[in-house]
Amino acid sequence: MKILESLKWRYAAKRMNGQRVPSDKVERILEAIRLAPSSMGLQPYTVLVIEDEELKKQIRPIAMNQPQIEESSHLLVFAAWDDINPEHIEEYIRHTAEVRNMPAEQLNDFKNTLLGIADRNTQEQNFNWAARQAYIAFGVGLVAAAAEQVDATPMEGFDAAALDKLLNLPEKGLRSVTIMPLGYRDADNDWLAKLPKVRRQKEKFVLEA
Amino acid sequence: MKILESLKWRYAAKRMNGQRVPSDKVERILEAIRLAPSSMGLQPYTVLVIEDEELKKQIRPIAMNQPQIEESSHLLVFAAWDDINPEHIEEYIRHTAEVRNMPAEQLNDFKNTLLGIADRNTQEQNFNWAARQAYIAFGVGLVAAAAEQVDATPMEGFDAAALDKLLNLPEKGLRSVTIMPLGYRDADNDWLAKLPKVRRQKEKFVLEA
Repeated sequence: MKILESLKWRYAAKRMNGQRVPSDKVERILEAIRLAPSSMGLQPYTVLVIEDEELKKQIRPIAMNQPQIEESSHLLVFAAWDDINPEHIEEYIRHTAEVRNMPAEQLNDFKNTLLGIADRNTQEQNFNWAARQAYIAFGVGLVAAAAEQVDATPMEGFDAAALDKLLNLPEKGLRSVTIMPLGYRDADNDWLAKLPKVRRQKEKFVLEA
Repeated sequence: MKILESLKWRYAAKRMNGQRVPSDKVERILEAIRLAPSSMGLQPYTVLVIEDEELKKQIRPIAMNQPQIEESSHLLVFAAWDDINPEHIEEYIRHTAEVRNMPAEQLNDFKNTLLGIADRNTQEQNFNWAARQAYIAFGVGLVAAAAEQVDATPMEGFDAAALDKLLNLPEKGLRSVTIMPLGYRDADNDWLAKLPKVRRQKEKFVLEA
């Protein structure tokens, strides 16, 4: 499986060389992320793409001053819905009916199930559930980047509230959960580039039940 | 990118045909999951593999009676650590030092950072953080299964407490977060098999910031 080779090749680059990732590669990575599955198919998250150098410069200090922020080509921000609203669900049902060429009424049971879940959970529970879905897409994006031989560093080490404010996410009903700089490793200056990958031993990680 | 074709091919099979997935395919899917990245590299989760028919039969009613549980070849249970303990961190540091052939003392700063994070969060926060990491691996596993032309249904619809009890997860310090039956679609009997995939429109899903 080529994916295994890609996963062995990839690592969380700590330094990138500033080289631009071609648009077609970025588009394919974003398309893989968009195709990722989510619970109920709701996709309760959005991906923001940042190329602007000035904006990256402002983000770097919010993200523990990590150099990949500025050295990346594109910075992806995975932002989850801060709640699951009836409007989200209505739009999803409308869109589903359109794509599947069926009357929206045929989806009433499904809609009511979704509305019931969103309603019986608190806003924070809905957000956390949305965040988990975003992490599935994040995993898919990391594989897709590796398949394109593009480096991608999964990063949770940033001040989410500050980033949200900078990107005006609250007014969009979004909260950032994780970020992914895309670019090319600067192997000469990255202490991690030459170290062997560490993963839990198979016999401890996989258990037969 | 072949991954895009795989992602278009895959869907959340609602019925499977009981056919066995060859061991080499399952091994490669599990290896992709094991290679998935996680925050700090900690991999705070375990994957349980269930082939036993009797056990699947017991799980089905806890999982909203979904037929894929019994119709699958292998059922993967992603279980996150119920807390991040100093023992987890010590073992990770020991293992890292061994793989990278360095004295464990050289990792003291890193270890203390990890211990600090685990200590300042509540058990529930640590578990939720571990669960999110498991979702990254879950996303990687879904891509890997599709690349092997193996159907995989992402499932959150189960009674986690009941499943944990059945699999004795509390005594292992684990809590199930999501499950993934692996098998082959029964397209003739699956209402979803022929319906077009629904994903949020690119212009709504991807935003330029």
